[in-house]
Amino acid sequence: MNKLDQLCVDTLRFLAVDAVEQAKSGHPGMPLGAAPMAYVVWDRFLRHNPQNPAWLNRDRFILSAGHGSALLYALLHMTGYDLSLEELKRFRQWGSKTPGHPEYRHTPGVEATTGPLGQGFATGVGMAIAERFLAGTFNRPDFPVIDHYTYVIVSDGDLMEGVSSEAASLAGTLGLGKLIYLYDDNDISIEGNTDCAFTEDVGSRFTAYGWQVISVADGNDIKMIEGAIKTAMAEKDKPSLIIIKTHIGYGSPKQDTGAAHGEPLGMEAVKETKKKLNWPLEPPFYIPEQSLTHFRQAQERGAKLERDWRDLFDKYRKTYPDLSVKFEQAVHGKPPQGWSSEIPLFKPEDGAIATRNASGKIMNVIAKALPNFMGGSADLSPSTMTTLNGLGDFNFETPAGRNIHFGVREHAMGAIVNGMSLHGGIIPYGSTFLIFSDYMRPAIRMAALMQTHSIFVFTHDSIGLGEDGPTHQPIEQLSSLRMIPGLTVIRPADANETAAAWKLAIELHGPVALVLTRQKLPVLDPQKYPIAEGVAKGGYVLIDAEAGQPDIILIATGSEVHLILAARDQLITHGIKTRVVSMPSWELFDKQSSEWKEKILLPHMPKLAVEAGSPKGWREYVGDTGDVIGLNRFGASAPGATVMEKLGLNVDNVVKCSLSLLRK
Amino acid sequence: MNKLDQLCVDTLRFLAVDAVEQAKSGHPGMPLGAAPMAYVVWDRFLRHNPQNPAWLNRDRFILSAGHGSALLYALLHMTGYDLSLEELKRFRQWGSKTPGHPEYRHTPGVEATTGPLGQGFATGVGMAIAERFLAGTFNRPDFPVIDHYTYVIVSDGDLMEGVSSEAASLAGTLGLGKLIYLYDDNDISIEGNTDCAFTEDVGSRFTAYGWQVISVADGNDIKMIEGAIKTAMAEKDKPSLIIIKTHIGYGSPKQDTGAAHGEPLGMEAVKETKKKLNWPLEPPFYIPEQSLTHFRQAQERGAKLERDWRDLFDKYRKTYPDLSVKFEQAVHGKPPQGWSSEIPLFKPEDGAIATRNASGKIMNVIAKALPNFMGGSADLSPSTMTTLNGLGDFNFETPAGRNIHFGVREHAMGAIVNGMSLHGGIIPYGSTFLIFSDYMRPAIRMAALMQTHSIFVFTHDSIGLGEDGPTHQPIEQLSSLRMIPGLTVIRPADANETAAAWKLAIELHGPVALVLTRQKLPVLDPQKYPIAEGVAKGGYVLIDAEAGQPDIILIATGSEVHLILAARDQLITHGIKTRVVSMPSWELFDKQSSEWKEKILLPHMPKLAVEAGSPKGWREYVGDTGDVIGLNRFGASAPGATVMEKLGLNVDNVVKCSLSLLRK
Repeated sequence: MNKLDQLCVDTLRFLAVDAVEQAKSGHPGMPLGAAPMAYVVWDRFLRHNPQNPAWLNRDRFILSAGHGSALLYALLHMTGYDLSLEELKRFRQWGSKTPGHPEYRHTPGVEATTGPLGQGFATGVGMAIAERFLAGTFNRPDFPVIDHYTYVIVSDGDLMEGVSSEAASLAGTLGLGKLIYLYDDNDISIEGNTDCAFTEDVGSRFTAYGWQVISVADGNDIKMIEGAIKTAMAEKDKPSLIIIKTHIGYGSPKQDTGAAHGEPLGMEAVKETKKKLNWPLEPPFYIPEQSLTHFRQAQERGAKLERDWRDLFDKYRKTYPDLSVKFEQAVHGKPPQGWSSEIPLFKPEDGAIATRNASGKIMNVIAKALPNFMGGSADLSPSTMTTLNGLGDFNFETPAGRNIHFGVREHAMGAIVNGMSLHGGIIPYGSTFLIFSDYMRPAIRMAALMQTHSIFVFTHDSIGLGEDGPTHQPIEQLSSLRMIPGLTVIRPADANETAAAWKLAIELHGPVALVLTRQKLPVLDPQKYPIAEGVAKGGYVLIDAEAGQPDIILIATGSEVHLILAARDQLITHGIKTRVVSMPSWELFDKQSSEWKEKILLPHMPKLAVEAGSPKGWREYVGDTGDVIGLNRFGASAPGATVMEKLGLNVDNVVKCSLSLLRK
Repeated sequence: MNKLDQLCVDTLRFLAVDAVEQAKSGHPGMPLGAAPMAYVVWDRFLRHNPQNPAWLNRDRFILSAGHGSALLYALLHMTGYDLSLEELKRFRQWGSKTPGHPEYRHTPGVEATTGPLGQGFATGVGMAIAERFLAGTFNRPDFPVIDHYTYVIVSDGDLMEGVSSEAASLAGTLGLGKLIYLYDDNDISIEGNTDCAFTEDVGSRFTAYGWQVISVADGNDIKMIEGAIKTAMAEKDKPSLIIIKTHIGYGSPKQDTGAAHGEPLGMEAVKETKKKLNWPLEPPFYIPEQSLTHFRQAQERGAKLERDWRDLFDKYRKTYPDLSVKFEQAVHGKPPQGWSSEIPLFKPEDGAIATRNASGKIMNVIAKALPNFMGGSADLSPSTMTTLNGLGDFNFETPAGRNIHFGVREHAMGAIVNGMSLHGGIIPYGSTFLIFSDYMRPAIRMAALMQTHSIFVFTHDSIGLGEDGPTHQPIEQLSSLRMIPGLTVIRPADANETAAAWKLAIELHGPVALVLTRQKLPVLDPQKYPIAEGVAKGGYVLIDAEAGQPDIILIATGSEVHLILAARDQLITHGIKTRVVSMPSWELFDKQSSEWKEKILLPHMPKLAVEAGSPKGWREYVGDTGDVIGLNRFGASAPGATVMEKLGLNVDNVVKCSLSLLRK
C-alpha cells in the first residue's frame, strides 16, 4: 500500500475507533478489518456525488454489516457529504446524525437502513433489479441513462442468514452482473471462531448460485482488492462475490477475537493500536490534511460525473422526448395527473368477486397507467392474482419485463421490494399469502422504518381460505401487522374498497399492506355507499340505522363486513336499529380527527366488532361496553364456509352477540 | 419395479388422488411423483411401530412438502396406524383426522406439522440433533439405546426457503450423518418451471454445506432409490441429500405442469391417469388385498423392533441403573421432584441485575438439575447469557455437549428447537434478541400450533437496550408475540420474577417466550412481595395502596414495573393512593378466574398501564377510563436511559399521566 492510501485507510480506521471509544459503545472490530476494502470501493470505483446524494445514476453502496456504521460515517464525512466531524463525535448519542446502525433518511448518503443481518444483502439485490429494469426500459443505444453498480459489504453473519441465501439464489438466476459484493471474511462471530457454526465452503455455495466468486487472500492488499473489483466488473452476466480475508480488530490487541466485535477497545487498547499502526496518539478524531484533501476529491469527481450525466440526459430528452417524460415521471415518484381514472367501478350485478381477483384487475389497470409499477410474487402469482398480463417476465433476457418470479422466498422478496423502492424510479410490489407475511416480517419492518414505498399484497386472508387448514390460515397476522409503526394495513370489504385501497397504496408513499380474500365477496354498490372517501378515512358508516339513533354499531373489516350487513337485516326483525361501520384500516382511521372518529363510532353506543382474526386490539374501538367476535385459537381444515360457520363467524352468532350486548 | 412394488406404489398414488378428488381440494401432483421414494423409505428402511407411534427409538419421518399430506395419510393407513380408510375419505373435512396439511397431535404417526415450506426441513435437523445428543449422552458400548435415522422428503419450495439454507449449513457443520433427505426434484413450482426463479446447482450448494449429495435420475426406479439410501446410511459423518428426478402429477394428463400441483385433477383426468397406470377405474379408494397385506407387515416388523429395543433397554437398566433413571426422566418429560429447589432467591441488597443475567444464573442451576435441558443461541450467547457453563459445546466430536452454536440463523434455530422438542427426551431452548424474534416468527408459530415444549429466551427487550438504535429496539415484538394463540409470553420485572418465569417455562409443557432486559433492574424483595404465586397467575398486586381503596392502579411489565413503583412514591406526595400491579404475562392472567382478575384490576378504578412497547392491546386491561404509556413509534440511538427518558418512559410522565387520568 502506498503511503497516501495507508494514511487514508488508517484515517477511516481511527475515526471509527475514536467514535466508538467516545460513545463508549459500538463495534470497532469491523472498521479496523474492513477499512481497506471500503476505501478501495469509495476511492477507486464508487461513482457518486457527495453534494447530491440523490443523484439518480450514482452507484449504490450498502454496508450490510450495519454494525460497522462508524466506518460508513467516516467515509461520508471524509468524502464531503453533509456530515460534520462534530456528528462523528456524537456517535450513538441522542439527536445525532450518527446512530448505532446506519439509518436511511436520517444521514445523508446512507442508502439503506442496515443492522439486522442479511437485510442489506437482499436489499442490494433489489437495487440491482431496479437498475436492470430501468436500464432495460429506458436506455437506448448511446443513451445509458441508467447504468451503475451496486456495492455491498457483507459479513459472516449476513451470509449465515437465510434471507441472503434466498436473495443470492435469485440474483444468480437473474444474472445481475452489476452487483458486486465484498465479503469481510474474518472467521469471527460473536460466539467465537466461525468454525463452531459455519464451516461451509462459501465460495462453492455462491458458485452454485451462479455467482462469480473471487478470492483475495489479504484484506490489506489494496491492489488485490482493486484487481478483484475489476474482475467483478468484467463479468457482465453474473453477480460477483469477492471473498476477502480480513482480521477483525486489525492492529489492536483484540485482533482476531470476538472481543473486538461489539464493544469499545478501551483507552489502553486504542493507544496500543495507534502505536502499532503508527498513528498519532493525540488528538482523537485526528484527520491528516493530506488524507482529507485526497478524500475530498470525491466532490469534484462527483460533480463532474453528475454534470456529464445531466448532459447525456439533456440529449436523451431531445432525442426521446416521450420516453424522457415517462422516465422523469417514474423517477419523481409522483403518478401523472389522472393516473387512476381507468380504475373500474365494480357493480353488484356483475356478481361476487374475491378481493384478490378484483385486486388483480385493478393492478392491471394501474400497470397500464404507470410504467414503473412492477413486482411479483413468491411463487404464488396464480393464487394472489398479481400477474401483470402481457407485460412480460423480468429476467436476464428481458430486463424490461414487469413480472418478477421471486421463487418461494418471501423474506428476500420483502427486502428486494424495499431495495427497488430505495433505488427510486419504481413502485414495487410483492405478494404472497397473508400467513407468509410472517416469513418476511423483518423486511416489512425495515420498510416501515425506512418509509419505503413498498406495497405488499397479502391474499388468503383468513380461515375463509378453507381446506389448507391451520398452517395456512392467518389468525394473528393481521393484528400483528397493525402493530408495526408506520405501516398502513388495509383490508377491503369488496372490489370497490379494493380499488380505493389500491389508489391509496399508490399515493401514500409509505409502505402499505393490502389484505385480500381468497373467497368471493358480494360487491358493495358504489352509488349507494361512500366507499372511496370512506376507505381513505380508514373507517366509515357504510349503512346507518334506518331512522334515528342506532341501538348498536356493528364494525367489521374485509369479508366480515358482509356478515354484519346480513346481521343488520336480522336485527331489524328483532326491532333493533343497527349502524354498520366498515373499518378497512386502523392506521388511517386513527389519523382522523376525534370529531370524525366520534361521529362514526358514537361514544357510549354499544359496539360489536367482527373480524376473522385475533380480537386483540379491537377493545380500543368497541370500548368497555362493547364486544368482539374474533379468533383466539388456530383454524381448522375444512371448506372455508364451514370453518367460518363452525368458529362463530356467522350471522346467527353476530345476532346472538348483539342481542346479548344490548341486554347488558 | 416388480409387480408387488408397483402395486403398492400405485395404491399410495391413487389413495391420494382419490382423496383429493373426493375433497375437491388438495395437491395430487406431489403424491403421484413422490410415491415411489416414500414407498422405498417406508417399506425398505423405516424402523417404526405403527401400533405405538410414540416408541422413542423409532426412525423419524417428516413430509416437509406438507401439501402432499394425502400421500402421508395413505402411508399411515396402509402400514396400520390408527387411521381408517374412512378418514382418508374425509380428507380436508371438518373434524377429520386428515387435514389439508399434516398436523402433529392430530393424526397418529404424524411427527411434525408441515406445510409452511422449509419448516419440515429445519425441524428434521432438530430431530437429528436430539438423536445425536441423546445417543452421545446415554448410549454405552453395546447399548445403543438411541440409534435411529431421520428421513425427510423435501420439495423445490423447501429448498428455496432461507430457513432450509440456514439449517442445512448447520447440519453440515455438525456432521449429522443420520439425516437422510430425499429431494423431490420435479422442476415445477406454482408459477411454472423452476427455471424462472431457481436455476442454482442444488447439489453443489449442498456439497458446499458439507453434505453428501447423491443423484437418482429416475424417481420411479425403486432399486436406484434404495441404493441411494444405502449410500446415505454408509456415510456416518455427513448428512445426505438424495436428489431424485421426478415428474409432478406422474401419469396424469397434467404431468410436468404447475396445474398438477394444487388442485384436483378432475374426474376425467383421474380416469385417464388410472387407465395409463393400469389401475381399476372403480371403486375409488381401491386397495388391492396383496398391497394391503404387504404394507401391513410393518405392524409385525414394528412390534418386533420395539420388543427388541425393550429387551435391550431392560439390560441397559440393569447394567446402568443410574443412567437409565436419568434417561427415563428425560424421556417422560417430567422434571424430577424438587428439581427447582436450587434455584436461588435473589436479594435486593445484592444489587441490581439485568433479567438476562439473572436468567443466565437460573439456567445454569436448572441445567444441573435437568440433564436434558440444553440449547443455545443464534450467535449471541455472550449477550443473551444463555451459556451453560462447563457443560461443553454440542458438536461432531462432543455430542453430549449441551451448548449449541446455532450461528446467525434465528429462523432455523426456532425450527430446530421445535424438532428437538418433538423428538422427545430434551427440554430445548433457543435465544436471541427480542427484535430478532421477527426472524423466527414462522417457527414460533409452529411451536404454538404443535404445542412443543420450546423455550425461547429473548433479551434486549426494549428501547432500554440503548445505542444500537431503532433497528435493534423492539417496539411491536412483544405485543405481536402475545397475538400468537397458545404461546405463553412472560416478561419478568426482576431477577425473582425471572426465576418464577423459568419454573413455569420448564413445567408448562407448551412453548414459552421469556422476554428479558439488557439493562440492570433492582431486585424485588421476595420476602415482601408474593412473587412466585403472582407470576404464576400472570398478574398480581405487587404493592397496594397504603390504606383503604386505591385512587389509581398502575400496571406494568418488566423494567417498567420499577418505573411505576417510583411513580407510586411520587404520587403519595400528591396524596394519591396507588396500587402497583405487575403483569408479567397476559396469557397466564387471562386464564385466571374473573374473580381473580377483578380482585387485581378492580373494575371502574382508573388504571394506567406502562410498557416500553406498542400500547395496542392494553385497552383490554385499563378499560375506557384508563390510559396507556407505550410507544407508537420506532426508537432511537442513544444510551438506554436517555431513550427511555426522552420517549416518555420516565417517572415524571407516569405521574403526569396518572394525575391527568384522575382529573378526568
